[in-house]
Amino acid sequence: MQFNEYYNGRTGLTVGVNKVLFSEETPYQKVEILETDTWGNMMTIDGMVMLSEKDEFVYHEMLAHVPMFAHPKPRRVLIIGGGDGGTAREVLRHPSVEHVDMVEIDEAVVRAAKQYLPDVGDFDNPKLHVRFEDGITFVEKVSDPYDVIIIDGSDPVGPAVELFSESFYRNCYNALTPQGILSSQTESPWVPSYHPAIRKLFQSLDTIFDVSRMYLAYIPLYPSGMWSLAYASKGLHPHDPEVLDRVVKGTTSMDDSLRYYNPEIHQGSFALPGFVREILR
Amino acid sequence: MQFNEYYNGRTGLTVGVNKVLFSEETPYQKVEILETDTWGNMMTIDGMVMLSEKDEFVYHEMLAHVPMFAHPKPRRVLIIGGGDGGTAREVLRHPSVEHVDMVEIDEAVVRAAKQYLPDVGDFDNPKLHVRFEDGITFVEKVSDPYDVIIIDGSDPVGPAVELFSESFYRNCYNALTPQGILSSQTESPWVPSYHPAIRKLFQSLDTIFDVSRMYLAYIPLYPSGMWSLAYASKGLHPHDPEVLDRVVKGTTSMDDSLRYYNPEIHQGSFALPGFVREILR
Repeated sequence: MQFNEYYNGRTGLTVGVNKVLFSEETPYQKVEILETDTWGNMMTIDGMVMLSEKDEFVYHEMLAHVPMFAHPKPRRVLIIGGGDGGTAREVLRHPSVEHVDMVEIDEAVVRAAKQYLPDVGDFDNPKLHVRFEDGITFVEKVSDPYDVIIIDGSDPVGPAVELFSESFYRNCYNALTPQGILSSQTESPWVPSYHPAIRKLFQSLDTIFDVSRMYLAYIPLYPSGMWSLAYASKGLHPHDPEVLDRVVKGTTSMDDSLRYYNPEIHQGSFALPGFVREILR
Repeated sequence: MQFNEYYNGRTGLTVGVNKVLFSEETPYQKVEILETDTWGNMMTIDGMVMLSEKDEFVYHEMLAHVPMFAHPKPRRVLIIGGGDGGTAREVLRHPSVEHVDMVEIDEAVVRAAKQYLPDVGDFDNPKLHVRFEDGITFVEKVSDPYDVIIIDGSDPVGPAVELFSESFYRNCYNALTPQGILSSQTESPWVPSYHPAIRKLFQSLDTIFDVSRMYLAYIPLYPSGMWSLAYASKGLHPHDPEVLDRVVKGTTSMDDSLRYYNPEIHQGSFALPGFVREILR
C-alpha cells in the first residue's frame, strides 16, 4: 500500500505503508497512524503528513530551540497544537523551564501519539500540562503571560486556518512577557497555493512584533522537503550576539540529543533564497 | 500518468505527467523528457530526475556560483557532465569567463535538452565548447589547466560511478590552476544507500585538496528535497573575507538572473545539521 500527499498538481510524496495502525474521524479532522516501510510510524491529519518517527527530530528541534535559546531564561512556555508531544519534549530539555502548557484541540492526536509514537512525547514530565482546548480562544484570555509561545499547528485548512490570522498573533503578542518570543510553522515556499497565507502571516507578524523573520528547515516528509518557520520577538534579534552566545553554550550541554539544530544551523537557517524573499514581498 | 522515483524503500517523489516527449536508450543510459503537469518539461536519466524547467535554477545556481564567485577571476572553466546546459549558462554569466569546456559523455542528453528544454542551456554562446567525451579520461590528459572545474554528473550508478572515485578527483586537482576551485553534486544526506559514497568522496577531497566542505540546497524534485554539494580548493576558504566581498559585489550586478543564490545563501548553505555531519565522520 502507498500513502500519497500531493502539493502541486499531482506532484508530491509517496511512502510505502505496511498497515494502518490508527484511523479516527474526530470532531475536527481525520487522524491516522500508518506503519511505514522505512520511517517508523507516521501520523497524518486529513491526509497530510505531520511526522514520522525517523524525521520528526528536524521539525521539533527547529521549532523549539530557535526561540528557546533566543530567550534569556524561558520559564513559562505555551505550545498551541503539538499534540504528538515532540515540541514539548524539546522545550523540556531546557533547564530553565518550569511550566509548559500544551493546548491541543483534539485529544485523539495525543491519544494516538501516546500509543503509537511512544518515543516522540515526554507526557509523564510533571512540568507539562496538556489542555484539550481551542488554542485560538485560549490565547484570548491568558492572565499569566508566557516567555515563549510556539505555534505547532497543521496546515491552514480545517481547524488550523485561524492559526494564520492577524488577530490570533495579536493575542499571542499580548500573552507574551516583555522579552517574549514566538515561533510558528509557516508551510513550504514551494507550494504556490500557500503563498498568500504565508505572505499575510509575515505581514501580520511584521505589524505586531518588533522583530520578525522567516527561517527554513529540510524536512523530507513535508511537501517539497523545504519548510518555512517564523521567529518573532518583542526586541531580541535571532542573531543578537547574546543569543548566539547562549546557543553555543546551550547546545554544548545538550549535544547528545541534538541531531539537526546547532549554532551554525541557528544562523544559516535564516538565509533565504531569492524566490522565497519574493513570496514575502 | 505518474512518474515515481523511490529513494528509501518505497518512499519517494511522484509527479503528474501529461506525456513522454523523448525516450531513448543510448549506449550509456535511458534518457527521457516528460511533460509534467506543473513543473514544465522534466529530464530523467535511468528513471532519476535530473531537472525540471521550474526547479532547475536551484541546482544550477548553487553548483556554479559558489565556486565561480570564490575564484578571484575565473577565465577557463571545465564542466564534467551537465549536458542539459544549465550549469554552463550560469557559469557564462560571469564576465571574466573566456572559455568553457563542457565534457558530456552522452550526446543524446544535449540533443534532448536543446529540443525540449530550450531555455535551460546557452548552447549558442561562442565561449562554450561542447565535447562528447568521457569526462573521466578527459581529466587525465588536461594540458591547459582550468580555474574552476564543476562535476555535474548523475547519481553514482551507471556511467557516473567513477565520478565518485579518488583517482578522478586527483586528476581534477592536477587539472586546476594554482588558485583552482572545484564543485560537485554529492547526493542527498537522507538516502541511506548513498552514505558510503558520500563519506568516501569527502574523505578523498579532504586528502587531495587543501580546503573541502559540504554545502546544501533545497531541490524539490530531488530525493528528499535536501541535496548536498562539495566545494574544494587549493587554499581559498568559501567564507574568506575576499570571497564574501566578491559575492556581494558580483550578485549585485547579476541580481535579475538569480532566483536562489545570494550572499546569505553563500554563507548559510555551508551550515550542516548534526545528522549530516555524522555521515562525514
